[in-house]
Amino acid sequence: MREAYHGQLGELADQLATMCRMVGDAMESATRALLDVDLVLAEHVIGEDAKIDDARARCEEDAYSLLALQAPVATDLRKVLSVIHAAESIERMGDLALHVAKAARRRHPQPVLPDSVRGYFAQMGGIAVELARKAERVIRTQDVDLARSIDDEDDAMDDLHRHLFSVIMDKSWEHGVPSAVDITLLSRFYERFGDHAVSVAKRTVFVVTGKMPGYGSATDDL
Amino acid sequence: MREAYHGQLGELADQLATMCRMVGDAMESATRALLDVDLVLAEHVIGEDAKIDDARARCEEDAYSLLALQAPVATDLRKVLSVIHAAESIERMGDLALHVAKAARRRHPQPVLPDSVRGYFAQMGGIAVELARKAERVIRTQDVDLARSIDDEDDAMDDLHRHLFSVIMDKSWEHGVPSAVDITLLSRFYERFGDHAVSVAKRTVFVVTGKMPGYGSATDDL
Repeated sequence: MREAYHGQLGELADQLATMCRMVGDAMESATRALLDVDLVLAEHVIGEDAKIDDARARCEEDAYSLLALQAPVATDLRKVLSVIHAAESIERMGDLALHVAKAARRRHPQPVLPDSVRGYFAQMGGIAVELARKAERVIRTQDVDLARSIDDEDDAMDDLHRHLFSVIMDKSWEHGVPSAVDITLLSRFYERFGDHAVSVAKRTVFVVTGKMPGYGSATDDL
Repeated sequence: MREAYHGQLGELADQLATMCRMVGDAMESATRALLDVDLVLAEHVIGEDAKIDDARARCEEDAYSLLALQAPVATDLRKVLSVIHAAESIERMGDLALHVAKAARRRHPQPVLPDSVRGYFAQMGGIAVELARKAERVIRTQDVDLARSIDDEDDAMDDLHRHLFSVIMDKSWEHGVPSAVDITLLSRFYERFGDHAVSVAKRTVFVVTGKMPGYGSATDDL
C-alpha cells in the first residue's frame, strides 16, 4: 500500500517535471519567434499550448485520485497538494509563453522589438528558460540548494525588468508609445514566468524540508 | 461525522466569502486612492494586504485539516480542493489591489492618470469591485445563474482594457511614454483581477453542478 502510494507520488513528480520541460521549450521557441520575427515558430507555440493545459488537467486528476484512494495525511497530504499548486503555476508559465508568441504574431511581419531592446529580451528569455529547466531539475532531484539558487536567478530577471522600464521611459526613447506598451507587457510576461518558476521551486523545497514557503512576491508590482 | 464535515465545509465557504469581501474593499480603496491621488488611502491598502495573505493561509490550513481528518472522496474531495484553488485566486486579487495602491503611492503627489483616462479607470474599478462582490454572493448562495452573469461583467472589463490600449496608442496621445506604461500595467491589474473573480465563480459552479470549469482565459494576453 505505502509502496504503491510512493510510486504514484513519484509518477506525479515526473508529470510535473515533464510539464516544466514543456513550458521551458515553449518559452524558448516563443522568445526565438519574438527575436527572429518568425511567424511559423510563433504559430507552433500557440498550437502546442493545449498540450500543456491537458498535461495539467491529467496531473490534477491523478493527484485527485491519489487523495481519494490513499487518503494521505500529514506530510504526504501536503506533498500531493503541493503537486496540485505547482501544476497550476506551471500551466500559467505556459500561458505566459503563449502570450509572448501571440505578441510576435500580432505585429508580424513587423518586429515587435526595436533593435535597442532585443538584447534585453534575449537575456530575459535565456533566464526564463534556465529557470524552467532548474525547476524541472529541482523536481527530479529534490535538490534544496539548487532550489534556493533559483531565487538569485529570478533577481537577475527582476533587475532586467526594472532596467527595461528605465530604458523605455527615458527621454531619448524614440520608438513611440505603441512600442513601449508592447515592451511593458512582454517584460511583465517574462517577469511573471520567473515568479512562477520560483514558486514551483519553493513548493518543492517545502515538500522536502517541511517548511512552508512564503506567499506573494515583492517585485511583481512593476 | 458527516454533519461535522458539512459544518466545516460551510465554515471554509464563509472564510472564502470573507476573503472576497476583503479584496473587493481593497480594490475599492485602491481605486479611490488612484483617482483622488490619496496617499493615506493608498498606504492603508498596502498595510492591510498582510491580513488577506493571513486569511488565505488560515483557509488553506483549515482545508488541509479537513482533508487529513475526514479524508473526503468524490465530490466532497473536489469541493475542498476547489476551496484551496479559490483561496489562491482571491489572494492574488488582493495582490493586484496592492499593486494599484503602490502605483498611486509611487507617483504621489503627482496623479498617475491623465484626466482623459480617469473615467475608464473609475469604470474598471467599479466593475472590479462588483465582480468581487458577486463572487462573494456566489460563494454564499451557490447561485449558479449569478455565477454565469459574472462572465458577462468580465467581458465589459476586457472591452475597457482593450479600449484603453487604443486610446494610449493613438497618435493624439499627448501624455508621453511613462504615463502610457503606468496605464498599461494598471489596466492589466484590473483585467487580471476580473479574470480571477471569474475563476472563483467557475470553481463554485463546479462545486454545485459537478461540471469542471475550463482552464485559461482567451483575453489575458493583451
